[in-house]
Amino acid sequence: MNLLLLEPPDIDDTHRVRLSGPRARHLIDVLRVVPDQTVRLGMLDGPFGVGTVRSVGAGEVELDCRFDDETPDRPRVDLLLAVPRPKVLRRLWAQLAALGVGRIILTNAEKVERNYFDAHALTEAHHRPLLIEGLQQARDTRLPLVSVHRRLKVLVEDDLDALAGQNLRVVADPSATMTIAEMPVEHRETRVLLAVGPEGGWNSYELSMLAAHGFLAVGMGGRTLRTDTACVALLTLCHERLSRPGAAATGAP
Amino acid sequence: MNLLLLEPPDIDDTHRVRLSGPRARHLIDVLRVVPDQTVRLGMLDGPFGVGTVRSVGAGEVELDCRFDDETPDRPRVDLLLAVPRPKVLRRLWAQLAALGVGRIILTNAEKVERNYFDAHALTEAHHRPLLIEGLQQARDTRLPLVSVHRRLKVLVEDDLDALAGQNLRVVADPSATMTIAEMPVEHRETRVLLAVGPEGGWNSYELSMLAAHGFLAVGMGGRTLRTDTACVALLTLCHERLSRPGAAATGAP
Repeated sequence: MNLLLLEPPDIDDTHRVRLSGPRARHLIDVLRVVPDQTVRLGMLDGPFGVGTVRSVGAGEVELDCRFDDETPDRPRVDLLLAVPRPKVLRRLWAQLAALGVGRIILTNAEKVERNYFDAHALTEAHHRPLLIEGLQQARDTRLPLVSVHRRLKVLVEDDLDALAGQNLRVVADPSATMTIAEMPVEHRETRVLLAVGPEGGWNSYELSMLAAHGFLAVGMGGRTLRTDTACVALLTLCHERLSRPGAAATGAP
Repeated sequence: MNLLLLEPPDIDDTHRVRLSGPRARHLIDVLRVVPDQTVRLGMLDGPFGVGTVRSVGAGEVELDCRFDDETPDRPRVDLLLAVPRPKVLRRLWAQLAALGVGRIILTNAEKVERNYFDAHALTEAHHRPLLIEGLQQARDTRLPLVSVHRRLKVLVEDDLDALAGQNLRVVADPSATMTIAEMPVEHRETRVLLAVGPEGGWNSYELSMLAAHGFLAVGMGGRTLRTDTACVALLTLCHERLSRPGAAATGAP
């Protein structure tokens, strides 16, 4: 844990927080805090801050908190992901939050098995603590927004503009010739919506529908990766590309 | 499995192979092969090829194999990794092979716990099948070379030149200002040796020693990632950089 994330109910009017449970145990057992020591804080979906340890008791830590004025921006990449196997999804939540995603839009596709939608891994009760774990690892406060869509067509045709209307849209496709490094990112404010298909790929109807709704196909070289590895790799490349707005990277002549 | 990897003992003089066990079950149950169907093959550390199904029996598949003349090059990134927790390492093997690494050089560091070296996850019996799984996922035949070094100083001072002498050396360091996209990659043949530290980071003595032996510090932005996520992200960026030899990528003015 590189940042201790608090939520509004944690804090009273005097900006004092009394923690118990796993966060207190982490402060006591791993960070070994002592009175007057400071720790990095964040308010979930709010600003960063600093906590000064007031007291350390049996499984309890009391902190005085100060917060910055500004809330960090939401990460500029959103992910549209065909629901993967529950085991893979469980592994992904914390990693996605750590890498930085604004939204996680989970959807159906032909090659998504129907029972994946019934998995516990899709419930907020399951993913919220994992997303917070990822934020605390990466020092971010912005909890990714998660939505689940059982019909890809309805999502793409009716709902996507409201969710990610202004984003540059790209779909990972092994047959694409454009790479993420070559994506047309014009401005420092450009947001990207990255679509990642199921383990067996999008079918041709799905790819056409995505293309018809503005998704550019982007490739990643010749290697086919497992969904979780692919998500980490593709999100990394999207963030790298967004960090260099303007001319696309090109190879040597 | 996107490529069926064979090993020399699998094949007889007539280039016929009779598979049983998990590979045969995969061909029968997942790929549902029938006689005369072709499947993509590779010879471990050898060329790619094509297999033509001759017969499908109870848990057995017989194939006639043809192989290309050339063996693909070893991936141009080598990884020097402080041994992570066994649970993390177990998750990493297949992903490293899928992303493409020539060598995996595991080492000690101050913040590596001593008992990590006794873990089953470090044994060849454990990692070889996982590496092969990653190769079959990503369609590669080159098995990463794995070595384990209990003394970082001996490794860096005495052994590293023999293992990765000609590589461009970089060490992931959150405080670095140079990014991987800015690494000086001059040639299409350039190899990179990427050093990734333990969960708690390299200590300052270790960082100085690496710097003294030619490692350039490279950063990845402000987010601190778990070792497994960091390895995937950093290897992805290294491969992306190597795909564009010549001028380093730069941001907008």
